[in-house]
Amino acid sequence: MMDLTNLFSEATMKVKSSKIRELMKMASVPGIISLGGGMPDSTSFPFEEIKDIINNWTPAKASIALQYGTTNGYGPLIDKLKERMERVKHISMEGHDIIVTTGSQQALALLSKLFLDPGDVVLVEIPSFIGAIASIYSFTGDVVGVPMDDEGMLIDDLTAVIERCVTDGRKVKFIYTIPNFNNPSGITTSQGRRRKLLDVSNRYKIPVVEDDPYGDLFYDGTEDDYRPIKSLDGEGNVLYLGTFSKVLSPGMRLGWILGPSDVVAKAELLKQSFDACTPTFSQLIALDYLEKGYMDAYIGRMRDVYRKKRDAALGALDRHMPPEVTWTRPSGGLFVWLTLPDYLDSVDVFKKSVERKVAFVTGDAFLPEDHRNNVLRLAFSNLSEDKIEKGIEILADVLRGMLR
Amino acid sequence: MMDLTNLFSEATMKVKSSKIRELMKMASVPGIISLGGGMPDSTSFPFEEIKDIINNWTPAKASIALQYGTTNGYGPLIDKLKERMERVKHISMEGHDIIVTTGSQQALALLSKLFLDPGDVVLVEIPSFIGAIASIYSFTGDVVGVPMDDEGMLIDDLTAVIERCVTDGRKVKFIYTIPNFNNPSGITTSQGRRRKLLDVSNRYKIPVVEDDPYGDLFYDGTEDDYRPIKSLDGEGNVLYLGTFSKVLSPGMRLGWILGPSDVVAKAELLKQSFDACTPTFSQLIALDYLEKGYMDAYIGRMRDVYRKKRDAALGALDRHMPPEVTWTRPSGGLFVWLTLPDYLDSVDVFKKSVERKVAFVTGDAFLPEDHRNNVLRLAFSNLSEDKIEKGIEILADVLRGMLR
Repeated sequence: MMDLTNLFSEATMKVKSSKIRELMKMASVPGIISLGGGMPDSTSFPFEEIKDIINNWTPAKASIALQYGTTNGYGPLIDKLKERMERVKHISMEGHDIIVTTGSQQALALLSKLFLDPGDVVLVEIPSFIGAIASIYSFTGDVVGVPMDDEGMLIDDLTAVIERCVTDGRKVKFIYTIPNFNNPSGITTSQGRRRKLLDVSNRYKIPVVEDDPYGDLFYDGTEDDYRPIKSLDGEGNVLYLGTFSKVLSPGMRLGWILGPSDVVAKAELLKQSFDACTPTFSQLIALDYLEKGYMDAYIGRMRDVYRKKRDAALGALDRHMPPEVTWTRPSGGLFVWLTLPDYLDSVDVFKKSVERKVAFVTGDAFLPEDHRNNVLRLAFSNLSEDKIEKGIEILADVLRGMLR
Repeated sequence: MMDLTNLFSEATMKVKSSKIRELMKMASVPGIISLGGGMPDSTSFPFEEIKDIINNWTPAKASIALQYGTTNGYGPLIDKLKERMERVKHISMEGHDIIVTTGSQQALALLSKLFLDPGDVVLVEIPSFIGAIASIYSFTGDVVGVPMDDEGMLIDDLTAVIERCVTDGRKVKFIYTIPNFNNPSGITTSQGRRRKLLDVSNRYKIPVVEDDPYGDLFYDGTEDDYRPIKSLDGEGNVLYLGTFSKVLSPGMRLGWILGPSDVVAKAELLKQSFDACTPTFSQLIALDYLEKGYMDAYIGRMRDVYRKKRDAALGALDRHMPPEVTWTRPSGGLFVWLTLPDYLDSVDVFKKSVERKVAFVTGDAFLPEDHRNNVLRLAFSNLSEDKIEKGIEILADVLRGMLR
């Protein structure tokens, strides 16, 4: 057999299977309670609505759904998204456009390819989304972390990091943030902090990539608490990423980039080589889903479903965890972030926990650089309240056995 | 407004909107007869079968279809594809694996990213698929063309080009070929030529990327005439690309890479950053479509549909074209390739033709380098036989008016 691996590009040679993937393989055993993968609730998908949509398509509509589409997305869906972004998210579309992407992971890949020359820096929250970090590295960028408190990125640290990059002659191409219920920490950036972040962005002329997959899934407060940074942006300096994965289905692979028209146009050119077009079948489902009001109904329903799961998780943590362990109290999204005593490493905890048939994701997956790994993520979204309770009880027991 | 375009990467700065896209915009006028886009027949999609599939899903199956999937693809679909590749295409899966991609355009992007360092060479047929050429350039490679006759790539030219690259110190990373009904030329590489191509590949240790989107759509001869190069490959030196776009629906965005397991595993790692996973909803439809025998029935039906269209196109060309124009006689696929007298440029023809409301794709789109542009592609796949006749009659009239 010929060995083709020696023909790989230099960048490919550097790509390694992540430790997390190896760990998660350990966790794929029957009967495991997985607080790991950040998946929406499998028992609540709007399948009846989707069937209703498809069964009502005319032959003409079905032909569009089954044919190639344009690279930027299906026109009527783009129009509907623009209208929704203006009405629900208070974002002005003036001078702006939307491209529909094959999930928001593709949006991250496109933006990374769009902006990054080898060694260019992207600033991310500590901790931040593993898929964004992977994408930045894959497209030759470098990731530098900015610490957060419970109101979001620390602005003094942010400016200090930028200044340090400037001093070192490094280009900071964008600031990546998940202001609503950060994955993995669950932390929400306060409205005040959002303004300050935007000020920094404008002052240094560094765009913000605002990833907002969970913004509709808040369980406390009102819409106003979660208004996107993009709604404050008068300079065209924020690229906003949306997705249908948590408000319809991740299996559809539908996301979008909302940004200045010239940036969106260039993303469209790059997307031609990536996959020609986003699944038209999914796009036509999503359009009807919006038009028939199914999406708003689903969001309302899922807020209740996830609020109960969130409360079950926080209740179980309160009841079972030893006082040496602390955690965030998210007001939305899918995740709680635990901090263990300094001397514990979450990989060690994971190995013991999996023996007891409970899995989670170790914190190092979400840390942009070497960082003490006494942190871990629990996803409460795809488990029953009983399983959440039981899983956390077992994890607490494992931790208690490891305390000094 | 901030100008973000000056932050684009160097590679992005170089990406320009293609001339073809600009031309095709001219062609989007009401009432135009488009022999342009290579789209499957919009009136023949198996929508009733797809509805039947979805309406019969259990809630458990729907939950899988609507949830995230693994990056390599849905296991039962991969198994089914492997079985089909062995049975129908006579490909041995030993030491090999399959990854399901978001259309085969993504397969091209992944393989380009996998193998290409800046300036690395990919050899392609003259003419070759525009999406492959774009992908190679987008991922920093260079494209070098190899001339064809009516049996495929000319082997002496192929070896000469490889030798020249070796002399120039350039790495040839793979040979890209569409052996069945090449897009755009319609030429089929003969079985004898396939063996010779594979010999060259083995001798120089340069893998072959065999793109086979149309292999099931033959209108003359038997399966044996169109057996993939991969079925002859004993060295693990061929990467075979398949797609559901022409045998189910392009709107599903489903393709696959079949290759040595280590190459497929690396492609999976890259795909994580590209889009996390291929649409699960589409994958579960495709699986049932295969299992229920809908695909084989559809292929049988579409061979008849497209054969009639192909015959209509060739008949119209015979009836209407002036003797100065020649064309290929494809035994499958969607395209006929016309060669005009040397002194005509197909862009000029296009402009006149569009005024008469007939569109096609100019040849330069498919030419890897500067090449006389007296060639053009006609797609007969998505027009009625009447429209094919009328379109070709008008085009012939336009050409007659331009002859010296």
